[in-house]
Amino acid sequence: MAYEITGHTVLTGLLGSPVEHSISPMMHNEAFRQLELDYAYLAFNVGTDKLETAVEGLKALGVRGFNLTMPDKNLMCSLADELSPASAIGGAVNTIVNDNGKLTGYTTDGIGFMRSVKEDGHDIIGKKMTLLGAGGAAAAILIQAALDGVAEISVFNIRDEFFKRAEDIIEKLKEKTDCNIRIFDFSDSEVLKREIAGSAILVNGTSVGMAPNTERCIITDDSVFRKDLIVFDVIYNPEETLLLKKAKAAGCPASNGLNMLLYQGAASFELWTGREMPVDIIKEKYFKR
Amino acid sequence: MAYEITGHTVLTGLLGSPVEHSISPMMHNEAFRQLELDYAYLAFNVGTDKLETAVEGLKALGVRGFNLTMPDKNLMCSLADELSPASAIGGAVNTIVNDNGKLTGYTTDGIGFMRSVKEDGHDIIGKKMTLLGAGGAAAAILIQAALDGVAEISVFNIRDEFFKRAEDIIEKLKEKTDCNIRIFDFSDSEVLKREIAGSAILVNGTSVGMAPNTERCIITDDSVFRKDLIVFDVIYNPEETLLLKKAKAAGCPASNGLNMLLYQGAASFELWTGREMPVDIIKEKYFKR
Repeated sequence: MAYEITGHTVLTGLLGSPVEHSISPMMHNEAFRQLELDYAYLAFNVGTDKLETAVEGLKALGVRGFNLTMPDKNLMCSLADELSPASAIGGAVNTIVNDNGKLTGYTTDGIGFMRSVKEDGHDIIGKKMTLLGAGGAAAAILIQAALDGVAEISVFNIRDEFFKRAEDIIEKLKEKTDCNIRIFDFSDSEVLKREIAGSAILVNGTSVGMAPNTERCIITDDSVFRKDLIVFDVIYNPEETLLLKKAKAAGCPASNGLNMLLYQGAASFELWTGREMPVDIIKEKYFKR
Repeated sequence: MAYEITGHTVLTGLLGSPVEHSISPMMHNEAFRQLELDYAYLAFNVGTDKLETAVEGLKALGVRGFNLTMPDKNLMCSLADELSPASAIGGAVNTIVNDNGKLTGYTTDGIGFMRSVKEDGHDIIGKKMTLLGAGGAAAAILIQAALDGVAEISVFNIRDEFFKRAEDIIEKLKEKTDCNIRIFDFSDSEVLKREIAGSAILVNGTSVGMAPNTERCIITDDSVFRKDLIVFDVIYNPEETLLLKKAKAAGCPASNGLNMLLYQGAASFELWTGREMPVDIIKEKYFKR
């Protein structure tokens, strides 16, 4: 193996808390190795209290960029010098590119979602989506889908703080896109059923059904599943949630969030290096369970 | 190769400018690999203008420690929370250990020198040394030799800023050790000859003779060389300076600065990891020219 850290090796990394169990260091370092790029990617346990100091330090150290995960994604917005449209709308950043001290913030989660759907052979541009949830993952999906040309999005959420935030995001998206976006109360099951019936894709953007609560399912009325409804779950642990099990049983094309995770990483990788991540090798090595 | 950067991997590194051609990243990363320690070592081009920001950032990132090279060694003294005796006396730090946010500064260059001499089979404790130069490397040697029990040290330097600084260092060493230290003007060649005649070891701590000026030699009167005079040159490029060539020709045991470089790194490594660097493997792999 020719890969070796030298005095020329450029640092990239991940800030968040916790980060120890992240798959990102393995994914990026293997990709650097495969393409013989002289970079290294390390994870740093940094919460919001130390984020600004860490970011100033990383700038002084001349790193190429870094990822942000919870709880740092929102605060990072105010620390970046510039924001991508998706980050500006969502108020969240998961990727920073450092161009000689100028930090630009991006959010690649939505990019990862859109690529994941496309790589599965589906074309949802110009079509309708029903999106469950309005947290970080759901917001990223909402924003990128609208920016990329999904024609109509119906968002369902309970009446919590995220409902309000989603309304603000939708306002901004309406200024920037022609996407017809509406938000509904998740408890209104008749409306939910109606919206799904008119949708090409149903996306679970919540954590309902994630381990250890694998017996839970965001959809309780199984009659919504029909053969031509694409079902996507952002969860990847378990690999097959109850939602995906039910969808598959009904003959729906169904995908978990593993590829979204992979492709959001690939998008960050490309922003830093200008090179395409060798996703097949990464998938084979780190995404087989 | 089992070595892989994960979310648990701990950062160490080197700050200075320039640092790109440093051998330290190779040396430390190979040692981590050999001992299966989950650390990585990267070099960062950071001058004094950004040092404080970089150091605060490294603390926020939770690194285990880092090395300092020119021009950061002196400024780092004022940024550390505690200093080793050698660092406090010399006003220079080449190694920082981070214990949960408390930074302790050490200087391992002198430790590297003392170990290098010892590993060559020489015992200079209780004996006399003539030391040429009073810059960073020479000061580190002076301080550690005095702390370790060299009985008498005669320092020679031209009357520059370092002469004055050496006088201050000597004052402090006299308070802390029984070492009989004197400093002389380098231009006084008769005194130089006399002091070398009474010394067990002659050390060149200057850069005179370093590439590209390999035709230069700090010693112009070859009659000082005698078979039982140990001659040590901190320079390692070229591997054999004119000083070492002359010394060897006269039958003196003569060593260059490569092992000092190796052992100063080994001392940093031990401060961070509590483990002994596998120096034979490192020497075989990176110090053969």
